[in-house]
Amino acid sequence: VTVITEAPKPVAQASARLAVEPWKTIAALIAGDTAPQKEHLKLLLERPLFEHKIGQPLADFRQQVYDWMADLCKEGLGRMPYPIALGGGGDMKGFLASMETLAGFDLSLIIKFGVNFGLFAGSVFHLGSDYHHQKYLRRTFDLSLPGAFAMTETGHGSNVRSLETVARYEPSTREFVIHTPNPAARKDYIGNAAQHAHMATVFAQLEIGSERYGVHAFLVPIRDEDNQGLPGITIEDCGEKVGLNGVDNGRLTFDHVRVPRENMLDRFASVTPAGVYSSSISSPTKRFFAMIATLVSGRITLTAASTTVSKIALTTAIRYAETRRQFGADGEPEIPILDYQTHQRRLMPRLAATYALDQASKYLVEQYVHGQENPEEADSDHQREVESMAAGFKAWSTWHAMETVQTCRECCGGQGYLAVNRFGRMKDDLDIFTTFEGDNTILMLQVAKALLTEFRQQFAEQGVVGLFQYLTRRAAEAIVDWNPRVVRNTDTDHLRSGDFLKKALRARESHLLSSAARRLKRKVDSGVPPLDAFNNCQDHLVKLAFAHVERRISEIFIESVDKCEQAEARRILRNLSDLFALSRLEADRAWYLENGYFEGSKSKAIRNLVLQLSEEVRLDAEALVDCFDIPDKLISAPIGLGKFPSPPVPQ
Amino acid sequence: VTVITEAPKPVAQASARLAVEPWKTIAALIAGDTAPQKEHLKLLLERPLFEHKIGQPLADFRQQVYDWMADLCKEGLGRMPYPIALGGGGDMKGFLASMETLAGFDLSLIIKFGVNFGLFAGSVFHLGSDYHHQKYLRRTFDLSLPGAFAMTETGHGSNVRSLETVARYEPSTREFVIHTPNPAARKDYIGNAAQHAHMATVFAQLEIGSERYGVHAFLVPIRDEDNQGLPGITIEDCGEKVGLNGVDNGRLTFDHVRVPRENMLDRFASVTPAGVYSSSISSPTKRFFAMIATLVSGRITLTAASTTVSKIALTTAIRYAETRRQFGADGEPEIPILDYQTHQRRLMPRLAATYALDQASKYLVEQYVHGQENPEEADSDHQREVESMAAGFKAWSTWHAMETVQTCRECCGGQGYLAVNRFGRMKDDLDIFTTFEGDNTILMLQVAKALLTEFRQQFAEQGVVGLFQYLTRRAAEAIVDWNPRVVRNTDTDHLRSGDFLKKALRARESHLLSSAARRLKRKVDSGVPPLDAFNNCQDHLVKLAFAHVERRISEIFIESVDKCEQAEARRILRNLSDLFALSRLEADRAWYLENGYFEGSKSKAIRNLVLQLSEEVRLDAEALVDCFDIPDKLISAPIGLGKFPSPPVPQ
Repeated sequence: VTVITEAPKPVAQASARLAVEPWKTIAALIAGDTAPQKEHLKLLLERPLFEHKIGQPLADFRQQVYDWMADLCKEGLGRMPYPIALGGGGDMKGFLASMETLAGFDLSLIIKFGVNFGLFAGSVFHLGSDYHHQKYLRRTFDLSLPGAFAMTETGHGSNVRSLETVARYEPSTREFVIHTPNPAARKDYIGNAAQHAHMATVFAQLEIGSERYGVHAFLVPIRDEDNQGLPGITIEDCGEKVGLNGVDNGRLTFDHVRVPRENMLDRFASVTPAGVYSSSISSPTKRFFAMIATLVSGRITLTAASTTVSKIALTTAIRYAETRRQFGADGEPEIPILDYQTHQRRLMPRLAATYALDQASKYLVEQYVHGQENPEEADSDHQREVESMAAGFKAWSTWHAMETVQTCRECCGGQGYLAVNRFGRMKDDLDIFTTFEGDNTILMLQVAKALLTEFRQQFAEQGVVGLFQYLTRRAAEAIVDWNPRVVRNTDTDHLRSGDFLKKALRARESHLLSSAARRLKRKVDSGVPPLDAFNNCQDHLVKLAFAHVERRISEIFIESVDKCEQAEARRILRNLSDLFALSRLEADRAWYLENGYFEGSKSKAIRNLVLQLSEEVRLDAEALVDCFDIPDKLISAPIGLGKFPSPPVPQ
Repeated sequence: VTVITEAPKPVAQASARLAVEPWKTIAALIAGDTAPQKEHLKLLLERPLFEHKIGQPLADFRQQVYDWMADLCKEGLGRMPYPIALGGGGDMKGFLASMETLAGFDLSLIIKFGVNFGLFAGSVFHLGSDYHHQKYLRRTFDLSLPGAFAMTETGHGSNVRSLETVARYEPSTREFVIHTPNPAARKDYIGNAAQHAHMATVFAQLEIGSERYGVHAFLVPIRDEDNQGLPGITIEDCGEKVGLNGVDNGRLTFDHVRVPRENMLDRFASVTPAGVYSSSISSPTKRFFAMIATLVSGRITLTAASTTVSKIALTTAIRYAETRRQFGADGEPEIPILDYQTHQRRLMPRLAATYALDQASKYLVEQYVHGQENPEEADSDHQREVESMAAGFKAWSTWHAMETVQTCRECCGGQGYLAVNRFGRMKDDLDIFTTFEGDNTILMLQVAKALLTEFRQQFAEQGVVGLFQYLTRRAAEAIVDWNPRVVRNTDTDHLRSGDFLKKALRARESHLLSSAARRLKRKVDSGVPPLDAFNNCQDHLVKLAFAHVERRISEIFIESVDKCEQAEARRILRNLSDLFALSRLEADRAWYLENGYFEGSKSKAIRNLVLQLSEEVRLDAEALVDCFDIPDKLISAPIGLGKFPSPPVPQ
């Protein structure tokens, strides 16, 4: 008897399933309030133009991605996030949701799209004034002015403040002279630059006379309308990359290139014709951060995009693991590999984390869009909060996605290694997500620094009284949390209570924060230079950032689960939110043990509970990936659609 | 001032460095006693034929790899591991050393080479008798009979015993009829099958009359001398894969293909012309494992090959991190990124582990070759030991290599993402190393099973007295190890003493082993079916296997360091062996804390010591990667050879 799972069983089940509870509710939670925009984009992607070819040469793939981008631009996707008054679509949230969906189709496409319509158009919008909006924005929206965002240089990536490209103002000609002073100062890895961009937003050190004013942004034409390079500009191609080969990354070297004074993006600072500098932001540091704030929306996009990739990888791996059978008791049929504890352990906590990230990503978008649409409500606290979330969530979600795709590949064995099943492309494209728009380790250090600043400010504002209150509160918490009855409590109800999970995640963060502050103060007080003191605590600070990010994600997820009104759906989601929080405690249980927050028995109980919850979640796993509602075309992997030969299973 | 590191500074330094102590001694340790064979191969690889092209189409790359293989075959590399009496080169150790070196050039090449000369020729040699040796071996050696090793099927990878391809004996024609009973029983992922193999060793269920005798191996011609497919055999191409695209993996479906009785590889079992089965091994299980023992040398090769890749990735990342500067104190030059604690923490423990694996891999080769060359000394204990080491080291080293290349890529930021810097190809090629020749998780479970079997046998042989002695010994150990003075001891001399490190690694293993044995016994005694009992403990068993493998690797490394006679070299190597052992204790410190083996203070002291040793090893890092002595051509990454523009550093 030959049984080939030709009819994609899991997929047929999926659509029927989503029509009934509890899956209907869960799918709606995942779809969120931008479901119409996502559905619209899914329909667009069903058209025959959107088809992948495996093993395409570089040049063809780049052209293909350009064509895809141009097609979506025609549908108004490029202008979508910008104000209607400026010719935009007035739907920032819909734009971000579209990017999230698009990530399931092709990451080169969203990156090229994001460079052109997010970073380049975004820099004109955010850093420019009315003059730039009127002159350039509409041309960026309809792709008649394709652009690049030229920040990074070969010699300076993370350390943006030390970029070396110079923009020197000449009062006599009223021009800026853009120049690359040495080969390491060439702009590097610039998306859209190798082939398609006509203009670049170039970040350069502003010089007037003998003064330097720091990094500012300038609009520099790099190609003419016939796509020919302009004089004084050397354009090189970065060539083949590990992934994202549909994006034409390039290098730009400027040899005394002149642009008119008006080409400086002057929202935060300007230069008069006579060469007098002025800025609405007096602090050079604050000015610098205002200039690079464009990166925030990029980080938000990457959080959502990488989570889409995690969803696709898990959908494929879980569907395969339900169908793939291997080994069994003597004389019995073989069992699905998802029945094995090791397989559950590898995939279920990742499924839970992906659900958590989905909710955290939605929350971040909500906060960001609210701030953009209501600037009067977005004070500096709100901005700092959004920036810190964007940095931390971007780092956590992109690392999570890389590891998830890798784990899923391994869980699919030899099938996972065939190009058609997509894991290779996903990994190769995702890889740089941990680096660009901010290196993950450096972003985590930024998150930690922000926490330290806030911590110090609190005491600076509240003085000795504040410190006293803080210490009293901490002591009171300690009496409750470090109570011997609590540190030994292995009761499942206790371990799964929101109270315990939240407290435990908060305790780790607040201890790591206060101990980091103490360590740094001690070092600096004893004469260690601040840079060395900070460097000496980096490991501690990265741990603090992880503690913070995981606490935030977990709280957001728990809160959204609590709001769910369908009882069965809430029960299933609770399994996931508990599994996420518990697997975070498990991963760092050494910290809790070292600090006496857990006794050994409690730590073991948490380990066992993670295994037990993984076994429970496994029962719903196939339905839970169906709830991601990824169209078959975006899954595309035959093993994710039940299209592979399986041996006959005796009935 | 423009400073471009055009002259590859680190590389020029490297060769000078290796001429003097302590680096001379350390480089000699890494070179080992097969240095001449490795040097010979490095010379061969210098020839212009051995040149990589980035972005080559699939067909060209496959042809290129075939040409490389044919060229090395002409140099006698293919026959190298086989006995001189049979036309071989009589140098198994040299062959393994050559594969280790070749891995630095191209992994597709070693895999194709390994399939043809290791697995295919190896199956003729190990599973065949004199008839097969005389008829086929010389033709496999000179590539006039390219071959494939057709074990895996689409439906059965890990569970080899349940393969479905049938070899039915027909006494009337004295032939075996090889048949694929259903689409899932097609042979899949078979290297060399899609284009080049003329013959395949096919593993199939032997049937005679109404009896089934289990899996046996048969030589089946699949293409004629003009490379045309033979009747009854459908050959499909697996197409593009994540990596290793220089290897032509294919699928084979057999429609009642007839081969003469003599084509059964009959060293362990044979069928008389009349159809009477006989075997020198009475136990079907033992017979099965004898049949698949060919896989052992493959696992040994993968351990060495993946460690070569780790070495190359670390060489590139560490050299880059010494040159790449980013951030610094105000007004001071920027500092090399290897000065940052996070960077040291990510790279130094991996450097230490790679040194440890290098020594462990050499030890494994030594033991294996000794057994092959002195079969009279290689009893079943020795064999089991080598098989278990090969399984465990293969899993550990391939996972280590995957993570190391990924970490190195991230540590090189955007440069790491350029194809020329090789991380992408290394990752893509390596990926399947965690799956083929035995899925890593399943190999780890096998290691644990072997430990449990040995543990049970010990008591079965020694009876109650043995059990009593064991418990007494364990109790005595516990008094020493769990002594409050010891579990609190945070003294650096104690933490770095071989006594503490060895004991701590052994304690974890022996506890995980005895507790696993107890748990399994309890479950089975209470009526849980063995498969379920085992499945329920998988997580525990994988941890046990890790504990065992890490203890073995650490002991081998410590022993080879102790033997080093040059004092300064020994001191430097001691840093590495301590860092390796301590970083293993650190990674699993939760286990030690849960079980009261460490108090919190000791665990924290170990964490700090790992950071401190990472800082110390960092000082020697560049020299330590120079000691790997990888030729520039094999490094090939411009950033690993100092060829990239850096900003001017103020003097």
